[in-house]
Amino acid sequence: MACKTLLATGIAAKFSDEVRASATGLTPTPVLVGFLANTDPAAATYAEWTAKACADVGIAFELRTVERTDLEDAIMAANRDPAVHGIMVYYPVFGPAQDQYLQNIVSPAKDVEGLCHTYRYNMYHNVRFLDAPADRKKCIIPCTPLAVVKVLEHLHIYNPMLPYGGRLYGKTIAVVNRSEVVGRPLAALLANDGARVLSVDIGDVLEFHRGDGLEHKQHIVKETKLTADEALALADVVITGVPSPKYKVNVDLLKPGVVAINFSSAKNFDAPAIKARASLYVPSVGKVTVAMLQRNLLRLYQYQLDDAKAAASS
Amino acid sequence: MACKTLLATGIAAKFSDEVRASATGLTPTPVLVGFLANTDPAAATYAEWTAKACADVGIAFELRTVERTDLEDAIMAANRDPAVHGIMVYYPVFGPAQDQYLQNIVSPAKDVEGLCHTYRYNMYHNVRFLDAPADRKKCIIPCTPLAVVKVLEHLHIYNPMLPYGGRLYGKTIAVVNRSEVVGRPLAALLANDGARVLSVDIGDVLEFHRGDGLEHKQHIVKETKLTADEALALADVVITGVPSPKYKVNVDLLKPGVVAINFSSAKNFDAPAIKARASLYVPSVGKVTVAMLQRNLLRLYQYQLDDAKAAASS
Repeated sequence: MACKTLLATGIAAKFSDEVRASATGLTPTPVLVGFLANTDPAAATYAEWTAKACADVGIAFELRTVERTDLEDAIMAANRDPAVHGIMVYYPVFGPAQDQYLQNIVSPAKDVEGLCHTYRYNMYHNVRFLDAPADRKKCIIPCTPLAVVKVLEHLHIYNPMLPYGGRLYGKTIAVVNRSEVVGRPLAALLANDGARVLSVDIGDVLEFHRGDGLEHKQHIVKETKLTADEALALADVVITGVPSPKYKVNVDLLKPGVVAINFSSAKNFDAPAIKARASLYVPSVGKVTVAMLQRNLLRLYQYQLDDAKAAASS
Repeated sequence: MACKTLLATGIAAKFSDEVRASATGLTPTPVLVGFLANTDPAAATYAEWTAKACADVGIAFELRTVERTDLEDAIMAANRDPAVHGIMVYYPVFGPAQDQYLQNIVSPAKDVEGLCHTYRYNMYHNVRFLDAPADRKKCIIPCTPLAVVKVLEHLHIYNPMLPYGGRLYGKTIAVVNRSEVVGRPLAALLANDGARVLSVDIGDVLEFHRGDGLEHKQHIVKETKLTADEALALADVVITGVPSPKYKVNVDLLKPGVVAINFSSAKNFDAPAIKARASLYVPSVGKVTVAMLQRNLLRLYQYQLDDAKAAASS
């Protein structure tokens, strides 16, 4: 049976359509502000791409180019400005440590990227709503991990026969990369949805899982003695995010019929090789990530509107 | 005139005495919990050192050795436990990015290291009290930057003739290292106290300053075109924290009579050379750092007591 290759553009289309339908006619128009404070050409390209994708669905995207030394103040001004509904920053700016400080400067009310501590904490702890027990406000999930979840739903890896919150139960998923921005949150998300996740990084493999019968309310992390190769061999789904053109998954290790997804900007799979081995292959998720950014923006826009109404009527 | 070398032990003594006097007779005994979740022998040594220093002043120090995969839950349990007054973690555990997430897991009420976002934000923004405008609860300042401030006070670099909050006005201070844990907060602290700080790191020199006449309420950060060498030549005080035995300050660049302080565990100054150049030299600050940890603990202990009383009487 031939492998089916699915492009992000096609998967993103239904989400873009939903966003466009929701955004059409909204007054005021939802405004997303992107801060560019580096000179990385990749960031500028991504910003152009975001601008185009926003124009396409009826979101006003405003790129603000600022000096890195002015960035914190600029974010705080946007936090206070009721005309701004969502804020994103093109990282890296200062480097991972100071950038994580900046991620916490963005107000949770406007954090479309879901990178502030409130959202990260809730994601790791499988806290899905901001306003429990009313459960009207879903938490914001970081865009790339959320995009991978949506790709897995599209591929029917999430089984809708199972109850919400446990639809990956029974699946073993290898996630190659444990970065704080994508790999670790993704492993946690998938494990919180029931998967046994083997989180592969340089030096070790950690297992993220809610246990037999999903006995735990949230995933537990355990050390393993697995090698990276052993983890890959166990996986029903392999998801890669190694930001290096030199890294290639050794496809011979994978189960025949495996599902393969790459979220790195580098190609972590050799295309002919993975197509000979996998049943489903998604070579990139970038376009879905942008759709998730827009989805998060509309969600925050609605919360801001609801809060303003509540404040006006009280 | 010969350079005067001051050892941390001597500078720490008066703070240890103060802590001992405050801790004596307190009921319950203040309890500091340290979490050890790595296998770094340096961390174990530092933990032993902390234990000894705490025993010496009447603080109960309890070292909890946990698996790194259990650390987050262990911190959260200590956050909830009224018998624990302060929490510290021996880093690194997972690496800088995930460790910064863990720093935000520690409750501000128990964060003796001052590394959670609340304290870091307040420090950068020169917000000195948690309960403005009552101003009864001073914010916690990270221990090593605070230790350097206390060393500078001890050396009379802080001028008590000037008003509180501006006692470094007129001084130019080079801080070599811009790490998120020490170098950057230290540069911000000193600049908030009035100094013109040249923050030297690989690749660039940034200036942290409140401006002429300290016109700004908090420091502003500006790019400079200075080289590291030029920054060193301008400095009245040079403070180093480069964690490499290979790095040595080129002492010939420094002003004769400069004040030199090293907070790195490596010796960033060649001792004979700096003693021939400087007026005051402090080769390490570690013992003062531990005294600051204890001071922070007693402060948080008092806040917890006050809060409990306030809750009981309301």
